[in-house]
Amino acid sequence: MKEVSLKPDERVDDLERNGLKIIQDKNRFCFGMDAVLLTGFVKIKEDALVLDMGTGTGIIPILLSAKTKAKSFKALEIQKDSADMARRSVALNELDDKIEIIEGDIKTATDYFDKASFDAVTCNPPYMIGEHGLKNPDSAMAIARHEVLCTFDDVARNAASLLKPGGSFFLVHRPFRLAEIFETLMKYRLEPKRMQLVYPFVDKEPNMVLIEAVRGGKSRMTVEKPLVIYKAPGVYTDEIYEIYGY
Amino acid sequence: MKEVSLKPDERVDDLERNGLKIIQDKNRFCFGMDAVLLTGFVKIKEDALVLDMGTGTGIIPILLSAKTKAKSFKALEIQKDSADMARRSVALNELDDKIEIIEGDIKTATDYFDKASFDAVTCNPPYMIGEHGLKNPDSAMAIARHEVLCTFDDVARNAASLLKPGGSFFLVHRPFRLAEIFETLMKYRLEPKRMQLVYPFVDKEPNMVLIEAVRGGKSRMTVEKPLVIYKAPGVYTDEIYEIYGY
Repeated sequence: MKEVSLKPDERVDDLERNGLKIIQDKNRFCFGMDAVLLTGFVKIKEDALVLDMGTGTGIIPILLSAKTKAKSFKALEIQKDSADMARRSVALNELDDKIEIIEGDIKTATDYFDKASFDAVTCNPPYMIGEHGLKNPDSAMAIARHEVLCTFDDVARNAASLLKPGGSFFLVHRPFRLAEIFETLMKYRLEPKRMQLVYPFVDKEPNMVLIEAVRGGKSRMTVEKPLVIYKAPGVYTDEIYEIYGY
Repeated sequence: MKEVSLKPDERVDDLERNGLKIIQDKNRFCFGMDAVLLTGFVKIKEDALVLDMGTGTGIIPILLSAKTKAKSFKALEIQKDSADMARRSVALNELDDKIEIIEGDIKTATDYFDKASFDAVTCNPPYMIGEHGLKNPDSAMAIARHEVLCTFDDVARNAASLLKPGGSFFLVHRPFRLAEIFETLMKYRLEPKRMQLVYPFVDKEPNMVLIEAVRGGKSRMTVEKPLVIYKAPGVYTDEIYEIYGY
């Protein structure tokens, strides 16, 4: 494990998988279960070239470097401080030859990468529409959670441009936007092929949805068995333990 | 209970609700759990005018006449023999003043009814695309199960024309067509607002999806808690017993 410098308010968290660690800042957006569940849902081929859009702390490529046999990961992040922190997490795990963090804007992602060059694109985008009710729309937290700097349309359009034909776009989002998400994906010829709903309890409404859409795919999808988080209050189901790698 | 005549191969089945009965023919399509679950999913206001498209045996309006306070039901059926059988089931239950069976084609449904005249439209459409693999595409069974005489586009287009603004279209379908269904609904300004996936077991893929789409509705939907059919092989969950009315 390499030594890297930490800034005030930053801490190093153990990812409990292959000795991986990640730097997080308690005042910024810390990765959530969403990102971890997305890494359990993706299916990535050996030697794949992968792009993570809006990587934040870099949690998705860092976990996927251990969970898959992908060749390399590019990870785009618009916030300078987040990109810098993600870059130091990559160094801390000695993954510099596998993961490259690029500071840049999802809206103009094709400026940084060649079109049709990735086998897979992953994204844990901001869920909330617009800036409604935000006291501080410029904060790191607001940018990660609300569509302040990019919309889902921007995300889907750029994912479609950067994927090879037949390549997969993997995302996690909120079920209340499902119809709109499908519509936007299909607008850019990203055909929804797999979907899994995440239910906090087996008798509650789902609060996350995991989707795989294939560039130019045919119209037929699989809805997977429910992913249930808790079997009792505070007790994870076996599946969640498996995804977390305990 | 009125006396009605039965044809050879027809039988009268008890619906186990309010003494309702239905005539079915073992050689034709008999109603399935799909139709019953749809009647458990719909929410229909008092005095609503309701249309069932492709009513088959008439199971949906007959059950909804007991489960809701709707004012009246129209039910469209293209197959002459099915329409006749449904009409006799309505008579058998003395529901002639509440349910009217109309022999006619979904593709030209606006020939029989006024545009924007219904508060709710229900449909348990054929699930399978085209006639692929069908030995006998003209059979009553094939017409009920395969898109031989109408496509989902026909169903959605006509439902949209016949619904009042703000009226609801309720349907049951197969999850593998979910993306296409959403796309088609939205094409006709039928906004998906509620969805429930039906899982045979809690750890299996869903085999049905229940959807409510609102004509001209805003983009935001609720995905409901999972509807699970069996708690053990052959043993229904309490929810299923409730929907069946035992």
